[in-house]
Amino acid sequence: MLPVPTAGFTLDARLEADSEQVIWLGLCELRLMNDRRWPWLVLVPQRQGIEEIHDLTPLDQTMLTFETNMVAQALKRMTGCTKINSAALGNVVRQLHVHIVARSEDDPGWPGPVWGHGIREPYKAADIHRFAQRIKAAL
Amino acid sequence: MLPVPTAGFTLDARLEADSEQVIWLGLCELRLMNDRRWPWLVLVPQRQGIEEIHDLTPLDQTMLTFETNMVAQALKRMTGCTKINSAALGNVVRQLHVHIVARSEDDPGWPGPVWGHGIREPYKAADIHRFAQRIKAAL
Repeated sequence: MLPVPTAGFTLDARLEADSEQVIWLGLCELRLMNDRRWPWLVLVPQRQGIEEIHDLTPLDQTMLTFETNMVAQALKRMTGCTKINSAALGNVVRQLHVHIVARSEDDPGWPGPVWGHGIREPYKAADIHRFAQRIKAAL
Repeated sequence: MLPVPTAGFTLDARLEADSEQVIWLGLCELRLMNDRRWPWLVLVPQRQGIEEIHDLTPLDQTMLTFETNMVAQALKRMTGCTKINSAALGNVVRQLHVHIVARSEDDPGWPGPVWGHGIREPYKAADIHRFAQRIKAAL
């Protein structure tokens, strides 16, 4: 794992504002969305100017698959959720990022998608920090 | 490419009803959602009983990444869309399937997600067949 961000990569300002850093993996920065309605992680490949998964190199695509699955498995194990929702949308924020969301039958908006559903509910500062630590421990 | 479906695999009845077959790839059946509001493809890995990408074998995950990207590139080239949305949700239909949708600024619901947006608008039979042929030619 890389201890520092990749030189020359700048995180999108909206992603930075809406989420908290959890850890750097080999390709991606793993971030936690600051929305306590769902356990919601985001993987951001540290590659400047990439908008689509298919614009990554084959090696980076393989890394992204590996990191997505590692994070999805950890999140499912940790939350006991019914279903993982993973998606690369990017209609608003164009910098490539992959959502990994833990969904359960009793969560807001189930079985609909989380994107565009209602208003974000931020965590208390101590709670988001604690949750990020739990995710790190689960990886 | 396999000319026939994998023995022992049964397509989910709802997926079958809502989409038309385009082609069998190495791992997945590629299907076209019968909703003319968006160019919307679905990849269904021919593996019985799998609900999450991370439950596929590492080889199957690599195949899925490859086929997803091949299809996404072809769809983007063919439609000239602004953004590909790709997602594995499965909150309603649990059989693993990956959505690949061509999105543009003037399409219904932009920039929100397509899932849960309004009512499906089926193609005319001749139109969906023609569109499926165009996709096959673009791959």
